[in-house]
Amino acid sequence: MSKNTGGISGESFSATTNGSPKGSTNNSTNESKNECTNGSTNGVDSFCAGSGGSALYKAWLQYAKVNDSEVCEVYKPLIQQIVVAGRIEGVLAAAVAELQEGIRSMLGFTPEVVQEPTGTSCLLLQVNKPEGAETAGAAGEGSGTVSKLAVQPGFDPLPMSETGPISQTSAQGKPWRVPKASAALEADGFTLLHVREGGENCLLLTGGSARGVMYGAFHLLRLISMGICPEGLNVRECPRNRLRMINQWDNADGSIERGYAGRSIFYRDGSMVTDLQRVKDYARILASTGINAISINNVNVHEVETHFITGELLLDVARVAAVFREYGIALFLSVNFAAPIAIGGLSTADPLDRGVQAWWKTAVQQIYTAIPDFGGFLVKADSEHRPGPFAYGRDHADGANMLAEALEPYGGLVIWRCFVYNCMQDWRDRRTDRARAAYDHFKPLDGKFRDNVILQIKNGPMDFQVREPVSPLFGALPHTNQVIEFQVAQEYTGQQRHLCYLVPQWKQVLDFDTYALGPETRVKDIVGGSRFPFPHSGVAAVSNIGDEENWTGHTLAQANLYGYGRLVWNPDLSAEAIADEWTRLTFGNHPAVVAGVTGMLMKSWPIYESYTAPLGVGWMVTPHTHYGPDVDGYEYSRWGTYHFADRDGIGVDRTKRSGTGYAAQYFSPNTEMFESLGTCPDELLLFFHHVPYSHVLHSGKTVIQHIYDTHFTGAEEAEGFVQSWEGLRDKIDDIRHAQVAGRLAKQAEHAKHWRDVINTYFYRKSGIPDEQGRTIY
Amino acid sequence: MSKNTGGISGESFSATTNGSPKGSTNNSTNESKNECTNGSTNGVDSFCAGSGGSALYKAWLQYAKVNDSEVCEVYKPLIQQIVVAGRIEGVLAAAVAELQEGIRSMLGFTPEVVQEPTGTSCLLLQVNKPEGAETAGAAGEGSGTVSKLAVQPGFDPLPMSETGPISQTSAQGKPWRVPKASAALEADGFTLLHVREGGENCLLLTGGSARGVMYGAFHLLRLISMGICPEGLNVRECPRNRLRMINQWDNADGSIERGYAGRSIFYRDGSMVTDLQRVKDYARILASTGINAISINNVNVHEVETHFITGELLLDVARVAAVFREYGIALFLSVNFAAPIAIGGLSTADPLDRGVQAWWKTAVQQIYTAIPDFGGFLVKADSEHRPGPFAYGRDHADGANMLAEALEPYGGLVIWRCFVYNCMQDWRDRRTDRARAAYDHFKPLDGKFRDNVILQIKNGPMDFQVREPVSPLFGALPHTNQVIEFQVAQEYTGQQRHLCYLVPQWKQVLDFDTYALGPETRVKDIVGGSRFPFPHSGVAAVSNIGDEENWTGHTLAQANLYGYGRLVWNPDLSAEAIADEWTRLTFGNHPAVVAGVTGMLMKSWPIYESYTAPLGVGWMVTPHTHYGPDVDGYEYSRWGTYHFADRDGIGVDRTKRSGTGYAAQYFSPNTEMFESLGTCPDELLLFFHHVPYSHVLHSGKTVIQHIYDTHFTGAEEAEGFVQSWEGLRDKIDDIRHAQVAGRLAKQAEHAKHWRDVINTYFYRKSGIPDEQGRTIY
Repeated sequence: MSKNTGGISGESFSATTNGSPKGSTNNSTNESKNECTNGSTNGVDSFCAGSGGSALYKAWLQYAKVNDSEVCEVYKPLIQQIVVAGRIEGVLAAAVAELQEGIRSMLGFTPEVVQEPTGTSCLLLQVNKPEGAETAGAAGEGSGTVSKLAVQPGFDPLPMSETGPISQTSAQGKPWRVPKASAALEADGFTLLHVREGGENCLLLTGGSARGVMYGAFHLLRLISMGICPEGLNVRECPRNRLRMINQWDNADGSIERGYAGRSIFYRDGSMVTDLQRVKDYARILASTGINAISINNVNVHEVETHFITGELLLDVARVAAVFREYGIALFLSVNFAAPIAIGGLSTADPLDRGVQAWWKTAVQQIYTAIPDFGGFLVKADSEHRPGPFAYGRDHADGANMLAEALEPYGGLVIWRCFVYNCMQDWRDRRTDRARAAYDHFKPLDGKFRDNVILQIKNGPMDFQVREPVSPLFGALPHTNQVIEFQVAQEYTGQQRHLCYLVPQWKQVLDFDTYALGPETRVKDIVGGSRFPFPHSGVAAVSNIGDEENWTGHTLAQANLYGYGRLVWNPDLSAEAIADEWTRLTFGNHPAVVAGVTGMLMKSWPIYESYTAPLGVGWMVTPHTHYGPDVDGYEYSRWGTYHFADRDGIGVDRTKRSGTGYAAQYFSPNTEMFESLGTCPDELLLFFHHVPYSHVLHSGKTVIQHIYDTHFTGAEEAEGFVQSWEGLRDKIDDIRHAQVAGRLAKQAEHAKHWRDVINTYFYRKSGIPDEQGRTIY
Repeated sequence: MSKNTGGISGESFSATTNGSPKGSTNNSTNESKNECTNGSTNGVDSFCAGSGGSALYKAWLQYAKVNDSEVCEVYKPLIQQIVVAGRIEGVLAAAVAELQEGIRSMLGFTPEVVQEPTGTSCLLLQVNKPEGAETAGAAGEGSGTVSKLAVQPGFDPLPMSETGPISQTSAQGKPWRVPKASAALEADGFTLLHVREGGENCLLLTGGSARGVMYGAFHLLRLISMGICPEGLNVRECPRNRLRMINQWDNADGSIERGYAGRSIFYRDGSMVTDLQRVKDYARILASTGINAISINNVNVHEVETHFITGELLLDVARVAAVFREYGIALFLSVNFAAPIAIGGLSTADPLDRGVQAWWKTAVQQIYTAIPDFGGFLVKADSEHRPGPFAYGRDHADGANMLAEALEPYGGLVIWRCFVYNCMQDWRDRRTDRARAAYDHFKPLDGKFRDNVILQIKNGPMDFQVREPVSPLFGALPHTNQVIEFQVAQEYTGQQRHLCYLVPQWKQVLDFDTYALGPETRVKDIVGGSRFPFPHSGVAAVSNIGDEENWTGHTLAQANLYGYGRLVWNPDLSAEAIADEWTRLTFGNHPAVVAGVTGMLMKSWPIYESYTAPLGVGWMVTPHTHYGPDVDGYEYSRWGTYHFADRDGIGVDRTKRSGTGYAAQYFSPNTEMFESLGTCPDELLLFFHHVPYSHVLHSGKTVIQHIYDTHFTGAEEAEGFVQSWEGLRDKIDDIRHAQVAGRLAKQAEHAKHWRDVINTYFYRKSGIPDEQGRTIY
């Protein structure tokens, strides 16, 4: 064995964007589907933990056996041993266990974990030590760290330009140097290097903390699963968003608001479930994509959930927090702003009342006693009838700051939602525009929030429609922490019965240039914290999981949860690259499967949009359920969601000149772009303008013909999914194939219903026939 | 005292139609409202039994103190004693108790019950003995009878032409004769005679059975309450319908399908309530109007209710049956056709399967062991996803007859609902017409049902709309027992939040001439059993009560339950006379109150119709809840309820010539009347024809202008209710006044919403402006 040889491939390699996966023909799922044959078909009872679960259950953590002998042979010697010098506990333990189980499942052997390598090859895990730090203890979550690293004498993969000396002493007392990926490696970042020097052949995984190591471990497992050889690996990954959060809208009774995949995995009949194995697997799933925070109850906090912050129920919450802690995920609770009244026996919840302030401080103290690393509160206040500070003549800043003051000593956060509007609007009142509401409410409060308050802003001004403009609040609050909120749950996008891969939508939003600080002030830069000096920022999203065996109802909807995590980790990843990754991890690397599934995913959002509400007008769904077409369903209701279609035209005039003035909430030149019929993008035309059906789009089509054409082709394309999927029948295990096939067939049928309702509605109203004379009822 | 004097007023007197109530200014409710001041505001807990209850609770059995001294003085001596010669038990006991309590409450003394009168005045109760009968035992329900009647020597109110000798011996051994109202007096009929002869002054109440006596007792109490003097009273009443039934749509969990007055009074949390006091008061309320049958569970029979026919739950049902038995009301159960599978452990519910037949026979035997006078089964089968014989290739007759055979030995009935249609219709299929369904299903089965099967036919072909034509099935099944089904619950008529007195609607239906046997074959004659020799016939209706203190949510909605019973007793009563009765009994006899409330009731159905769906087209309500406007709510759904409105016109072509052919299901000349645009009544125009908005009605208005006008005036008139009611503030107790005032205010507001949604919808679609230029949004 040589030492100090250096000279590894200096070429930067990113597996997910630049990698060149082996074109394995391995149909991984044909193995995995047999691994849990005793599982029942549904729910928690069918639960098969970890890699022992069914293919439906394992989602993208299939860890299918790698049949590519080349890949196996490269990895096998390299990772026979996992070297960890210090105590293995907490997040580090989870990372090591995941590596052992993943490698066992994929490569057929279980690597031994050692403090020192016994040969010339190993996978070495370590926590990066910030430059200048004197002690050997790693920064981290207070869980497992690699505090002392000892390798056998003579082993030293340096030099690398980014590495620096760390004085350490081997077991033999000899000094040596380990690579240090970067002095500035953040806690959640990691580097993954392949070091080959003479007879030595090692992988060095260095995390900014134990959590970073864990993310690196999942990254390595992804590489193996995708058949990517480690030769010359030189990965450096740091998440672009600090807060990467999932919001559960689960209720204590076991229901899930806007849940489309069964009942809650957390609660049943008013209590926390006792067996947390499925919660643990959820934590693994989330952690594997980089999620680091979760709120575990619905933002609409009902009676039982109001008590989560005290007493016995708090102990239940602490049990769940412990599960997530092992995967580096901080636990948050949604709280009831009126809790001081509801459970505290006070007569007020006024945020400026000293008694109320004291009550919350005591409550928070109790929470931190039970959960020392508690994340904080998620709050929906003065929104859709939820209590809030308005009742006391206070504003959102008063409300949020009061809670923030209580949380501040413990490092806790208040995440305060901006989804505030008048949900009792009179539809006859044309001056009120719901789209304006969040901006009108929160813009005047910029700078008035404490440092540990974060505003959570929905991606658009309305409510997770298939198409709406980006919220004008992004960039409009330069002095206020903010996170963007997406909805992985497909509330308005087919409810996981329709295929709708949402990563392209989110990416459009994140890439939107707000011009807040001039060009290139994109949403992703704002929420990523790189353009404004926010102490806190990031991304949150409503989860799409439940207790159905495949987590998400539609197996392909797993891609949205995976894609959410991956996109938030790195918003520069392409939607297609994420789809490719997810498909390989989930269904294996067969080129036809990868191309087929990726292709379906990438087409699915445009197709869903094409047969539903046209040109950005939104809604047109069945009230309450939000599933299926009902063009006038919300037209005369109190929800502020109108299209104003009459026999002549359709759309909402939100211009400064003649409309509600919403367009003026954007920075220039976005305001001008939306304001002008000439420059407003077609896909948002009816969101900003009321036009006659004969209005000609940039596409050259009239609005009415666009409606007809997109609805006819959209329904055809939905039918096309059925064929595409059928073509993969022999390459995907029967159970998952049948599950998806059933959903796609129903989607195709329902897409025709959408097509015919929308076309018939507009034909009956406009009287303008389809140019192609197709059937309209 | 003389005897055999005869010569009482021979003039027939009907209190309800010809009576001349004293114009008392007594505000009866000002007394009664103070009688239950400790009652809580809602639900069973607030229950104040009988006349001790609150004014809200007592409904039309207020028994308010009679302040008219003239009335008091006439009645007081007359009814100091109630003479009943035989044992007082069962229904007779209920009648006597009701008389004692009512008289105590209204006149301030409690009459004593004696076997013989001690003076020259009394109220004598007796059961009529059919001519030729040799024994003194009365026919009846097996409960209390007046088997031996003894009065003091010399008392004999005869002669009357209809009476005949009944040999009886007084306590003194002297023979005497009692009047016999009619040899043919039916069991439920009664006569009520005032006999004044010299110093003798008696009221003679003769029932065809104990039940007849009870109905007469309630009749007498009504007279007193309305301030009608008994001088010369000579009433003969026989109900025109044999079966006078109420259907509860209550579920074991305590909910009520289409219930608008709280929770069930029968069930809570899956069990029968233990305290049946409120059920008893409901029985009193029903019996007071003549109801003689009740089904106590929802026609959609869920899991728990499927078990009502067996085991412990059957014993609970028997407890309830005992309560209703005391008021002459037979108890029925809705049954699950698939019960042999669901609870019997059989693999089939095929009505031709011997095992299934045997299972039902055993079940029925057990029921009659527990409830010897059990009424029978109400069945919703093969309707809206309920199980039925179709699953086995059998028809409705097969299904009904199988159950009927099991019930026949005990005299039980099968009431089989005809509400059968395709509730999975494709809205794109213009050939299918839900209106046709009941006729198409059942007409071919005429004559195939056993004698103890009754078909229950909804009043119209659709589903209890504010306006629809009469079902063409009436008269079309000459060989099949039939009852008509109304809905007292205001599912589509404002849900007891809007005032809508439905008696005028029901009366129109009952008065409709089917021409089945030529002119004057009215629906009331058919279901009354006078035109076809049906062994069984009558009327059923869905109840509108729940556990709210006032039973019906809207206090004025009590008039619908009262009016239902009274109209079914005698379909020739006018809606206005019934309203007048109800108002007097409920709010007292002040002329302003009687005129004001009666006026509001009588206008309410036309007003509700005017601001909701126009011209018989129906629906246009929010799906599922059926409350509030949603013009297109059902337009693209599977329920078969469409209006086909486009920019040019609206309506459903149900003609033979060019439409679905539904009009041909009627007898001539009704078919021709509906078929022709020239003769189709305006109010049903859009049910039968699709016409342009410019079509001119018989009224001279265009369809579109009719829509605008009725909606503007309807909303104004709803507002007018508020003023009318306000004018009665000082004449009605505060609690009931406020209760109604609150509902009327909301109705007025909601009527404006209806007005504006309907007008806006049609203006946007038609583009035709209102001739009067009123505001349309």
